[in-house]
Amino acid sequence: MTSNSPLTYDQAGVNYDLIDPLKVTAQRAAAATASHLAGHGFSEVKASRGESAYVVDVGPFYVASIVECLGTKTLVADEMAKLTGKSFFAGIAQDTIAMAVNDLITVGATPLVVQAYWAAGGSDWFGDAQRAQALVAGWKAACDTCQVAWGGGETPALAGIVEDGRIDLAASCTGLINPKERLSVGDKLGAGDAIVLLASSGIHANGLSLARKLAERLPNGYLTEIAPGLTYGEALLAPTALYSPVTEALWKAGIAPHYCANITGHGWRKLLRHPSALTYRIHTVPPKTAVLEFIQQQAGQDDREAYSTLNMGAGFAIFVKAEDAERTAQVARDCGIAAWVAGSVEAGEKQLLIEPLNIRFSEDDLALR
Amino acid sequence: MTSNSPLTYDQAGVNYDLIDPLKVTAQRAAAATASHLAGHGFSEVKASRGESAYVVDVGPFYVASIVECLGTKTLVADEMAKLTGKSFFAGIAQDTIAMAVNDLITVGATPLVVQAYWAAGGSDWFGDAQRAQALVAGWKAACDTCQVAWGGGETPALAGIVEDGRIDLAASCTGLINPKERLSVGDKLGAGDAIVLLASSGIHANGLSLARKLAERLPNGYLTEIAPGLTYGEALLAPTALYSPVTEALWKAGIAPHYCANITGHGWRKLLRHPSALTYRIHTVPPKTAVLEFIQQQAGQDDREAYSTLNMGAGFAIFVKAEDAERTAQVARDCGIAAWVAGSVEAGEKQLLIEPLNIRFSEDDLALR
Repeated sequence: MTSNSPLTYDQAGVNYDLIDPLKVTAQRAAAATASHLAGHGFSEVKASRGESAYVVDVGPFYVASIVECLGTKTLVADEMAKLTGKSFFAGIAQDTIAMAVNDLITVGATPLVVQAYWAAGGSDWFGDAQRAQALVAGWKAACDTCQVAWGGGETPALAGIVEDGRIDLAASCTGLINPKERLSVGDKLGAGDAIVLLASSGIHANGLSLARKLAERLPNGYLTEIAPGLTYGEALLAPTALYSPVTEALWKAGIAPHYCANITGHGWRKLLRHPSALTYRIHTVPPKTAVLEFIQQQAGQDDREAYSTLNMGAGFAIFVKAEDAERTAQVARDCGIAAWVAGSVEAGEKQLLIEPLNIRFSEDDLALR
Repeated sequence: MTSNSPLTYDQAGVNYDLIDPLKVTAQRAAAATASHLAGHGFSEVKASRGESAYVVDVGPFYVASIVECLGTKTLVADEMAKLTGKSFFAGIAQDTIAMAVNDLITVGATPLVVQAYWAAGGSDWFGDAQRAQALVAGWKAACDTCQVAWGGGETPALAGIVEDGRIDLAASCTGLINPKERLSVGDKLGAGDAIVLLASSGIHANGLSLARKLAERLPNGYLTEIAPGLTYGEALLAPTALYSPVTEALWKAGIAPHYCANITGHGWRKLLRHPSALTYRIHTVPPKTAVLEFIQQQAGQDDREAYSTLNMGAGFAIFVKAEDAERTAQVARDCGIAAWVAGSVEAGEKQLLIEPLNIRFSEDDLALR
């Protein structure tokens, strides 16, 4: 292994300081368009502004929609294909759908339709039949897991915009919140709620810029063994967990989450997503997956840095009534996803306290609105 | 001007022969996922498979959804920004929304929510505040025109996938078909219907690969004057017409189109989009816009080649009862969009006859399903 100087997320090439101000400007302009819905007899659910999915009240139920990008995980898949001769695009397809579906379900929606956005650097990308078929097969399999219909999509060839030999993958998703009481945009969130964390399968699809940068520093790169028989590259490419089977099962079990947070970019800071002034106190920290532990160690990150950028073993947070907490975790386990009753919501200033690690994140650490 | 050897669409770098087979495979896999909707108490509108937007029957109305890519028009905007110092990204935003909205309305949907997909080659793209603000302002203005709510979106930085300094733009759109009798997936289409063509504003966002290739052959490139005071680059960047005000006005006027076709890639061959065996006979050809006439002339395309790849002045086709044809055109004009009763639908083999130009396209010329 290498001797490590610390590697930060900014050094890895993603500068949220440049992107976040535009996000805020765009969100304000977007908010000003909500009034158009009245002309069609509908209205927005204002509390969904700034949430992971946008929600419109169409009368008998709510409609939720979203578009989400995979990010740069394909660069790892491309490199690993070169190194191993295997195609990893079935898993990549699942990652892409997970980005959209796991966000959409946070507001209480049942995902119904996924659309594929596959923008290649040139027509040639689609000429590699094995890779293209893996993408198709993986996409369908993820739709099957999430019980969504694959509606269609877009397969443009964008030479000059997307790099030659690369593909920009995204998914849009539309769902219904039905019945309307399933809506979870945070208005029910309050002191006394429990925080249930669902296990991630690995790095998921956030933090890949850092992970790729790290590979460059390893003498064996992606082929470095991080556990017996498991290379760094393979571990990175574990497909993102799909959480919609859990949220659907919760509803069938009579549990309506008060709020949900998909733990993606900004890592555990996403637990601070809701604008309410509340304190989130974590007493139980899930085990890190092997690949996340490896990254933290190799990048020389302290816990604060690691938990502020990576999911560190927890891919999704569900905020429920304290009395539903244990049952919520059990429902997730019954879906094959490890889960922990990890903490509680308290009255107090907006902050996240990860007690076992002595970490505190405050409102200033997450400026998304 | 240059002396011209013919320039074909394939030479311009887009090879549909490589992309279309994957599309077909993906469409088959997608079709197999429709059964998942039954688990949620819903069903797909099967006739929407292969149409421009996917439609689900959710009981009181239909939900339509789509994701659409802008394509490579930003490359022209980037070049023109260098040449003129102006930002064209407000228009580019309209183009992007038009790609999604103009497709969604073909099935009879009222667009309700648009999501932004802005994937840049690096965080730096968002650091050019003037350009970023133009994109935001243009996006909002197009939402205002279409009376849709801008729900949110995604602004990833994708160094290594999207080229440095470039941006991959797309939009997803969700809408309702309400009341359900507005559904227009072609089952009502039949012999005796009239074809009304709506004017395009220029090249829109299809055929840009060809248009850019052409610029390389012009001594003055994008600054070539194609009409007094109008450069080739400016003409190319005329924002795509937004047709949803027309389809909404038609409904208010009591006119329910039997079918609609958004004339994008594959040019007028898109008039053959519906799978029915019907003959489409065009008796009136709208004037070409200046920029399309210029492209055809400079690329040395005959009419058959030009009409098979570009919109040639007609951006959208509406198929209506013959008795509604004149009124349909008038409704469009009242919305500020020129329109022509251009032809009729007849029993007979599947073909498009553009009589004034002596062109015939058959089923073999458009293999999308």
